[in-house]
Amino acid sequence: MIFLFTDFGPRGPYLGQMTAVLQRLAPEVAVIDLLNDAPAFAPRPSAYLLAALLPELQPGDVLLAVVDPGVGTERAAIAIELDGRWVVAPDNGLVELAMRRTRTVREHVIVWRPERLSASFHGRDLFAPVAAALARGDRSRLAPASLSRMPGWPDDAAEIIYVDAYGNAMTGLRAESVPADAAIELAGRTLTRHRTFGDARPGSAFWYENSLGLVEIAANGTSAADLLGLQPGTPLAIRATPVA
Amino acid sequence: MIFLFTDFGPRGPYLGQMTAVLQRLAPEVAVIDLLNDAPAFAPRPSAYLLAALLPELQPGDVLLAVVDPGVGTERAAIAIELDGRWVVAPDNGLVELAMRRTRTVREHVIVWRPERLSASFHGRDLFAPVAAALARGDRSRLAPASLSRMPGWPDDAAEIIYVDAYGNAMTGLRAESVPADAAIELAGRTLTRHRTFGDARPGSAFWYENSLGLVEIAANGTSAADLLGLQPGTPLAIRATPVA
Amino acid sequence: MIFLFTDFGPRGPYLGQMTAVLQRLAPEVAVIDLLNDAPAFAPRPSAYLLAALLPELQPGDVLLAVVDPGVGTERAAIAIELDGRWVVAPDNGLVELAMRRTRTVREHVIVWRPERLSASFHGRDLFAPVAAALARGDRSRLAPASLSRMPGWPDDAAEIIYVDAYGNAMTGLRAESVPADAAIELAGRTLTRHRTFGDARPGSAFWYENSLGLVEIAANGTSAADLLGLQPGTPLAIRATPVA
Repeated sequence: MIFLFTDFGPRGPYLGQMTAVLQRLAPEVAVIDLLNDAPAFAPRPSAYLLAALLPELQPGDVLLAVVDPGVGTERAAIAIELDGRWVVAPDNGLVELAMRRTRTVREHVIVWRPERLSASFHGRDLFAPVAAALARGDRSRLAPASLSRMPGWPDDAAEIIYVDAYGNAMTGLRAESVPADAAIELAGRTLTRHRTFGDARPGSAFWYENSLGLVEIAANGTSAADLLGLQPGTPLAIRATPVA
Repeated sequence: MIFLFTDFGPRGPYLGQMTAVLQRLAPEVAVIDLLNDAPAFAPRPSAYLLAALLPELQPGDVLLAVVDPGVGTERAAIAIELDGRWVVAPDNGLVELAMRRTRTVREHVIVWRPERLSASFHGRDLFAPVAAALARGDRSRLAPASLSRMPGWPDDAAEIIYVDAYGNAMTGLRAESVPADAAIELAGRTLTRHRTFGDARPGSAFWYENSLGLVEIAANGTSAADLLGLQPGTPLAIRATPVA
Repeated sequence: MIFLFTDFGPRGPYLGQMTAVLQRLAPEVAVIDLLNDAPAFAPRPSAYLLAALLPELQPGDVLLAVVDPGVGTERAAIAIELDGRWVVAPDNGLVELAMRRTRTVREHVIVWRPERLSASFHGRDLFAPVAAALARGDRSRLAPASLSRMPGWPDDAAEIIYVDAYGNAMTGLRAESVPADAAIELAGRTLTRHRTFGDARPGSAFWYENSLGLVEIAANGTSAADLLGLQPGTPLAIRATPVA
């Protein structure tokens, strides 16, 4: 399967054109819209989302990742094999966290160039044909290279990285790195942990381990982002001893 | 075919993860995004939408319905067979109207539990694997049970249940239950019936029987919801004799 | 492949119902969401978008185009063959620009009528079954007819026709019709051309040839539409000699 991870947003003509290329070149492979509203122009928070979502893939699957503010400039195009799963992406740090959390990493640079290469849409023209080829087992457009840009982002990011359509706010913290009885401080509030929505008072905010294993700020039956004024980039702190 | 009916919204990482599970377990079955912006956290209006959309399915099809504010609590998970079509859903009333409008109803509870069961995403972990199994004819994860929660919601709901991207406002009233010459009163206005958009004056609001058989409030060439201030929950009244 | 081009917006129950009809009638054909937020109720700007996107199709592909404010009125339903690619659409000018830019055009009217024909959703009831038939090579629902409505829109439209999710604003001008050193005047500003985003100063607006060959107004790392107050219909002028 080929999974799409982009900042294209929920509308517009880009996903369709990219999907058409994939379906033409790999008609037997399912294409899954995994996440297409990654933070726009922002490889850093997107890298934490990508790393959290990658375990949904299985060996042989391909993640086509396009958060690419440098499109058309000299940044390289890469294809990284992570425990048998492929990530095809611009070389801007987007894959750093996923690489760091994976046992067997094989780095490649995309050396092939298409006949049609627009200045602004390498997702369609460059990355999609390579992703389709990899999904069919064809690595001929790659060359091994250990050149991936590693910005050195922290293992966990103590900030909001994504707000979903319900208003739940994902953080860049893996829940396994936070004590279960810790409190989260953000936006002038101190939040304790609940297991799930129904365990919290209606309308009250809390934190919990979300279905991707991340610390998430939520509220029962309402938007935590609206309630607390959260957006990508909002910082938070972990407080080891929870308040009473 | 498997149809998705959720309140996940038009963006985010949830539909993709759920679809990936379906495609892995039932690769030969088409997955259709039927409606994924059902009213969030709101099984009641969603139940009227689900009942109106269910006739689009054919025997053997599966509707995977996830409007599930009680996820992770003790609410049961059910699979209901309605004239040969399956609905897989949380047991919170979401299927009540559809059940009441169907001749042959067979109720089942989902007794299977997956190895991975997150506290907040049973759509991916529990309902999708069961939907994929049912689409392949496998009922082994179910047990017959007549326990479905029936909140006793009325057959028709005299209120707005959904506003679409054009600003058309669907009601919970089946058009067959409203006289064709009746007027609808809402938001301080009295609206008469037209057959379709082009029959109304540009910019003027009216009601009509929409393509799902529901009474819908619309305006020719503009947003009725903006024009009249409509949102899910806005009440309305039927006035048997239309105004001149 | 069947490509969808509609003004249904990124959410709602319409795309799913239409896709279900296509999948039932042509299960072996891939369905691609090409662009589903074409300007609502607006065939004119949509016609420029459609013409720009049509080259993404290959012979045998079908574009199902539904921007149809006159649905349910007497407007005809047409199927146009353009260099071997099909466009199925209401006859309201939506296909005019594409027809004018194509060598071999064969016009047909849809003479078939379905058993179920709602007043407001011909996309599902009429156009989708015809598109599915054409994708399978069946033209039996058509009759040749040279009656397509041609509103006489200009070859290039000096105005914004679409704003994408990043805030980039497409114009109805083909880049090949504008000198590379020309400036674009709009919203009280004069913009020069850049090749791509990374070549412009962060936060500054410019114009460039987008991946569909259109003149597009953009800004590096931010929303040009917000920066300049652009929306569909905003006029612009080409100034042959750029400012210094």
